[in-house]
Amino acid sequence: MNELTINLKTNSKIPLYEQIYDYIKSDIQNGRIPYGEKLPSTRALSKHLEVSRSTVELAYEQLLSEGYIESEPYRGFFVAQIKELYHLKPVKAREAQKGDVRRKYQYDFTPNGVDLKSFPYNVWRKLSKDILIDDRTELFRTGDSQGEYGFRNAISNYLYQARGVNCSPNQIIVGAGSDYILMLLGMILGMDHKIAFEDPTYKQAYRMANGMSYETVPVSLDKYGMKVSELEESEADIAYVTPSHQYPTGIVMPIKRRMELLKWACRKEGRHIIEDDYDSEFRYKGKPIPALQGYDIHDKVIYLGTFSKSIAPAIRLSYMVLPKPLLDEYNKKTRFVNSTVSKVDQLIVQKFIEDGYYERHLNKTRALYKSRHDVLIDELRPLEDICKISGEHAGVHLLLTFENGMTEEELIQRAAKKDIRVYGLSDYCIKEQADKKATILLGYANLTEDQIRQAVEILKNCWREV
Amino acid sequence: MNELTINLKTNSKIPLYEQIYDYIKSDIQNGRIPYGEKLPSTRALSKHLEVSRSTVELAYEQLLSEGYIESEPYRGFFVAQIKELYHLKPVKAREAQKGDVRRKYQYDFTPNGVDLKSFPYNVWRKLSKDILIDDRTELFRTGDSQGEYGFRNAISNYLYQARGVNCSPNQIIVGAGSDYILMLLGMILGMDHKIAFEDPTYKQAYRMANGMSYETVPVSLDKYGMKVSELEESEADIAYVTPSHQYPTGIVMPIKRRMELLKWACRKEGRHIIEDDYDSEFRYKGKPIPALQGYDIHDKVIYLGTFSKSIAPAIRLSYMVLPKPLLDEYNKKTRFVNSTVSKVDQLIVQKFIEDGYYERHLNKTRALYKSRHDVLIDELRPLEDICKISGEHAGVHLLLTFENGMTEEELIQRAAKKDIRVYGLSDYCIKEQADKKATILLGYANLTEDQIRQAVEILKNCWREV
Repeated sequence: MNELTINLKTNSKIPLYEQIYDYIKSDIQNGRIPYGEKLPSTRALSKHLEVSRSTVELAYEQLLSEGYIESEPYRGFFVAQIKELYHLKPVKAREAQKGDVRRKYQYDFTPNGVDLKSFPYNVWRKLSKDILIDDRTELFRTGDSQGEYGFRNAISNYLYQARGVNCSPNQIIVGAGSDYILMLLGMILGMDHKIAFEDPTYKQAYRMANGMSYETVPVSLDKYGMKVSELEESEADIAYVTPSHQYPTGIVMPIKRRMELLKWACRKEGRHIIEDDYDSEFRYKGKPIPALQGYDIHDKVIYLGTFSKSIAPAIRLSYMVLPKPLLDEYNKKTRFVNSTVSKVDQLIVQKFIEDGYYERHLNKTRALYKSRHDVLIDELRPLEDICKISGEHAGVHLLLTFENGMTEEELIQRAAKKDIRVYGLSDYCIKEQADKKATILLGYANLTEDQIRQAVEILKNCWREV
Repeated sequence: MNELTINLKTNSKIPLYEQIYDYIKSDIQNGRIPYGEKLPSTRALSKHLEVSRSTVELAYEQLLSEGYIESEPYRGFFVAQIKELYHLKPVKAREAQKGDVRRKYQYDFTPNGVDLKSFPYNVWRKLSKDILIDDRTELFRTGDSQGEYGFRNAISNYLYQARGVNCSPNQIIVGAGSDYILMLLGMILGMDHKIAFEDPTYKQAYRMANGMSYETVPVSLDKYGMKVSELEESEADIAYVTPSHQYPTGIVMPIKRRMELLKWACRKEGRHIIEDDYDSEFRYKGKPIPALQGYDIHDKVIYLGTFSKSIAPAIRLSYMVLPKPLLDEYNKKTRFVNSTVSKVDQLIVQKFIEDGYYERHLNKTRALYKSRHDVLIDELRPLEDICKISGEHAGVHLLLTFENGMTEEELIQRAAKKDIRVYGLSDYCIKEQADKKATILLGYANLTEDQIRQAVEILKNCWREV
């Protein structure tokens, strides 16, 4: 072959060498230029197309590097055997199947909300750019299965200062979300355990434990949190608790109950407490109580934390702090499991913490949530004759317990008719509650102050009329 | 307080408003300006510091948004109660504990290597920038637990064209690495199974199965792959196989054996085949054989794939394709488990596939590995009187079986003395092999052609002398 007539567009955004590369590649793929055919020399083709020789050389190099042509010394370029090459045709995206389309409400008091408008996009973009700037092969090599040391060090400093958690970076294991962390913890602990859950509880963790085929048992709460006497009777050897802010009742477990819980753990060999500190970042009243882990001198507490609540749900970054004996188990049994978090993401969050952005972000969102919290409480005052507010000192939701004769279902339905979504406590209960009082959860992280005012105005009316 | 004398640096890179913010913040944190103190008005302070009023306003706004000061209408700005605020002191990174420092070899023939120099850094950076460019709150919201639909669609197109895998995007579940995918699959299948592994095998998967407390059984290979008669006798109900390129022996399972395997799966209710297609991307000889999944008309095959081998190990992105009955199980039992991969990463790889970069990257690395493969084979020719090459038609490693009387250990040690790391087949065996022949694995993805020439030159000598 001596000629290749390519209709080059000099005013195109696609560089000339790429137009030549594309043309020849597609001719080879279509079989128009068959296997073994000799291509024109770079000199001849550049003359023919009236482009510089280096432009043609660039195109040939690209074809060479992708295996479409082969170079034979002193003879020239020849079309290669391409049946082993990849040729992926672009296919139009299929429409996603419309499965369970959830109803959209005008106002949604979800207790799992996070204000994404306050997500620090600029900082994130900057950090992400900085980290990718060098062609660092190191960044794309297999990482430490526990998580990168520098990142674990940043977490351990944060935990010590903000939560009173005592640990070295070696005790921290990073993973892609809390569900995964529980799966990994399951492999470390083994299957032969009975796990006690607070009732009502954080259902996701309860479902995970059951999904992993653990035996589970609900333990009821009094106003201080999980009843330790009932826990003792349950014959569970692991207690899953949320002492900083019980989910969903909002109880902050006082020191005395924490000590009783730690004593329970010490009474028998092999007992453990899983402390899920899922949203301890947001407190509005009183002095912060350090994490249970900080009081634990007998290596009984497994501490779980996450960045999904405090930064954004899509940041798949959680961690656990293992007591030393379990760390030995981890090293023996599951250290070989590769990390689930990319180094890039770990480095972004490490820088985010170390450069002070996390502190700022926490204070900003806390201030934001506090204003919404205050507005919500203010607006709810006129309802105090028919319901009692509780669980309002921390987190991003509160509870309303009604004594106006309406059932939970009725309260939810009446709100739904006015396009407002509220949540019933029953959804979080494991056992059917006998002395069940109608209790509604209102989350406020997702709503603006104005939206809260408007929605509560409507709720006041629809929850009153009989 | 009427005055605040701040030593502003006008030639600093830190903007003036931030200097004012930093100064006041640290004074509040230190208690130098106590709770309740009134700050100077923005007008007064701007006059005093000789800066514009908007500069001071910006500083006050920042302090306000982070909760350090409060604004009272018509009265001014006052220092807030800050004991609930975060104040994280930067702490110097501790030195990582020097644990098991692995010996570095001059030449390392690791079979798990990936050429990271050919990683498309520029494209990656560009895609990552493009995706983060808009302040898209959607990007940071909780995603689809199966993985984003668009990404699964791109995977399903790729699998159909490149691997002959028949599936809809709905059958694909994305996860952060193959270890995690196995954990999730474990939750879907439940614990009551016995899993047969090829012997020798991919030890990581074998360790995962044991780590999850599954009963496992090794099944030996003949030259076509897993022996189906032995599998039948083993009473396993799940067979874990690598038919495209058996790991580590490199056997490409012929169609006949594939059919026998599928028949085995159909013979009894509840049997399944796990097809791990970990490195099918790289083949050097003969027509590609479609994946086992493509022949499966009875919903028996669970297909596993990963981007960690074909792009980079630090890309924590793997997936499985479930047959429809298991998809129903997934929807019933484990759909609630949140995705372990961030939307950002999913979108980057989706774009990488859709815009043709993946095709280019695969062809480029394939050409690169093929050259290294050819050089290695060429260099090894003079050793053919003492060893036999096998498993060389695909993947990124080959095997040498020796018949010169040296043991595997001896071959490894002799190489190590010359600063060359080679790998023994025994490491991949589950059972002690009775008729064990000394077999060495050589991976070539990590070494340049020159390094391969140099290293084999040395190996030729040290494996010959007696």
